[in-house]
Amino acid sequence: MAGTDHARSVAGSGPAIVLVEPQLGENIGACARAMLNCGLTDMRLVNPRDGWPNPAAEAMAAGAIEVLQQARVYPTTAEACADLTYVLATTARPRGVTKEALVPRAAVAQLRARIAAEQPAGVLFGPERAGLVNDDVTLADAVITVPLNPGFSSLNLAQAVLLVGYEWYQSGDDTPDVQLMSDSPPAPVETREFFFSRLEAELEEVGFFYPEHFGPTMKRNLRTMFTRAGLTDQEVQSLHGVVKALTGKRRRRP
Amino acid sequence: MAGTDHARSVAGSGPAIVLVEPQLGENIGACARAMLNCGLTDMRLVNPRDGWPNPAAEAMAAGAIEVLQQARVYPTTAEACADLTYVLATTARPRGVTKEALVPRAAVAQLRARIAAEQPAGVLFGPERAGLVNDDVTLADAVITVPLNPGFSSLNLAQAVLLVGYEWYQSGDDTPDVQLMSDSPPAPVETREFFFSRLEAELEEVGFFYPEHFGPTMKRNLRTMFTRAGLTDQEVQSLHGVVKALTGKRRRRP
Repeated sequence: MAGTDHARSVAGSGPAIVLVEPQLGENIGACARAMLNCGLTDMRLVNPRDGWPNPAAEAMAAGAIEVLQQARVYPTTAEACADLTYVLATTARPRGVTKEALVPRAAVAQLRARIAAEQPAGVLFGPERAGLVNDDVTLADAVITVPLNPGFSSLNLAQAVLLVGYEWYQSGDDTPDVQLMSDSPPAPVETREFFFSRLEAELEEVGFFYPEHFGPTMKRNLRTMFTRAGLTDQEVQSLHGVVKALTGKRRRRP
Repeated sequence: MAGTDHARSVAGSGPAIVLVEPQLGENIGACARAMLNCGLTDMRLVNPRDGWPNPAAEAMAAGAIEVLQQARVYPTTAEACADLTYVLATTARPRGVTKEALVPRAAVAQLRARIAAEQPAGVLFGPERAGLVNDDVTLADAVITVPLNPGFSSLNLAQAVLLVGYEWYQSGDDTPDVQLMSDSPPAPVETREFFFSRLEAELEEVGFFYPEHFGPTMKRNLRTMFTRAGLTDQEVQSLHGVVKALTGKRRRRP
């Protein structure tokens, strides 16, 4: 895990992740991993049940131990958020608090806008069982709700952190939707046409295109099929070899 | 957990989740939960290391036990995918296989298109440590790569399933980006104007708008601040009460 350098380089560039009264150290460790997966390093703990530091958290954090070492502990949510100017609360249930509820993708757009303007922002996550209390939700500028199977929507703490962190990372990532993984360049039309002509000539020779009036359609279908595969130069050469091998076998027959 | 009915109603409407040679039962159980969170129920296991059924998986699945009970076990990846017409492989590293690599959001768009056309589709996830072998990647139509912190990108199995499942669920979900959580309707302009006028009248009375030429700006700033809060009817009434209480207090003084 080469996370250490990168953790440093992204520190301070993302929202703070504020875990309010987390219970299990294992979950805090898993949150640290999920945060670092998403380039987040500012972990804040409000009154963790089993004290701090917590060996169970460290055992679970694996390569993300640095996130735990930098974590800060506060007695109240308000103190943990003291320097933040924009706070979002993750909560499944509206609770009679008049606030905007944002889906994660809309929430990270708000976070990006604040952080781009150098306004510190953070996201609150409640304790494993009960979630955030009303006073914590009240403190937040808006709420994040994650659309999930309404019949089975409860996430564990680290999964909730992962989903928000994932959307945060995606909102700043420029990976193209589609990338070509290839060691060989794609075949240009000229190269493909040469192969198609050769294949068709070989097939003409053995009377494959019969009855004759179906010939043009059959040729188009073959060309369509091979074209859809997006062949590389090297693959077209392999296909030439395949045709040669098959015709050679036929020709060797008596 | 009221997952059972919903699990049934969505069965068959999403991609199969194919876990290839998973090692720990706990991880299989956590995958079942992540799947059901995202409305997915078709779990397929290729040669699970510790056999099947696995009590450790059941202990971890909590309310998603039904996903495990319906899971099918196969000796090879090809057999697990036999009925699928479109298969995606999750893999971090390009491996000299010429294929398209899709980000999760683009990948689920492809899955949606296939499944909408009633073409069964699935997603392969490799064993915890080593990931998918080349032959499994070769079997897949395309690859999913999840953009994450390049210095710390390894996810556990259930987290990888959760991220793909999350994108699947979002791609079919119509939750608005922003929702208002409120028990009281928003205040119309007339209601706000009445409050602003009253507040300004009270402040005029005590000479708050001084020096006089700043008055219009100060009034605009107050109105802007209260307007930005997006007040409800009820909140405007509360503010009337606040003004009344403060002025009453002032007036009670000698």
